[in-house]
Amino acid sequence: MQKPVNFESKLAQFSEHWQPKVVAEMNDYQFKVVKIQGDFIWHAHPETDETIVVLARTLEIAFRDRIVEVQAGEMFVVPRGIEHKTAAEHEAHLLLIEPRGVLNTGHEGGARTAVNDVWI
Amino acid sequence: MQKPVNFESKLAQFSEHWQPKVVAEMNDYQFKVVKIQGDFIWHAHPETDETIVVLARTLEIAFRDRIVEVQAGEMFVVPRGIEHKTAAEHEAHLLLIEPRGVLNTGHEGGARTAVNDVWI
Repeated sequence: MQKPVNFESKLAQFSEHWQPKVVAEMNDYQFKVVKIQGDFIWHAHPETDETIVVLARTLEIAFRDRIVEVQAGEMFVVPRGIEHKTAAEHEAHLLLIEPRGVLNTGHEGGARTAVNDVWI
Repeated sequence: MQKPVNFESKLAQFSEHWQPKVVAEMNDYQFKVVKIQGDFIWHAHPETDETIVVLARTLEIAFRDRIVEVQAGEMFVVPRGIEHKTAAEHEAHLLLIEPRGVLNTGHEGGARTAVNDVWI
């Protein structure tokens, strides 16, 4: 049985941006912490919703028709198949919840695709 | 598409204990906020893991062989089928993540079973 996962302790163990680290699993879902700054790429996850909990600072999620701002202490569910682009002016800390195997770039691929399933 | 969910705002909308309220869905999973104080009953969820994120104060989870303390800013995954009993000396605020349809008392039932699928 796992120990409790402390988000701050996990986040203190790395500094790179846009590289999600798995901290726990529930059934076939994974919990990942990630640090982001700047702009990501447009992508979608055709097979699944994706949950983002903001642990520190502010996340901007751009959709084709609007921008959503998510603050620390808030969560947002990006619906499956909807194109989006995440961004953070100042380094933001996030908790991602999604099925095991989902890539950060969805079906876009490319240079911004992080190595998947890295535990911390 | 949903708006961002602010945990504190949701928690400010009710005061009763042990009555989870759904705040978001991801695929067939639900996110529920709940306030607890005192002791719950022994129960298990034979069909699923259950994730608990502590949003405020301290949660104690008793297992048959040990007690786990989970602080604010920490999460814990209770494995499927494992008997457990949650408790909080001072009112604690939790975020639960589990498949839609899971009851708070698992397969125990009884007077402590909360009405399921109540949104806030």
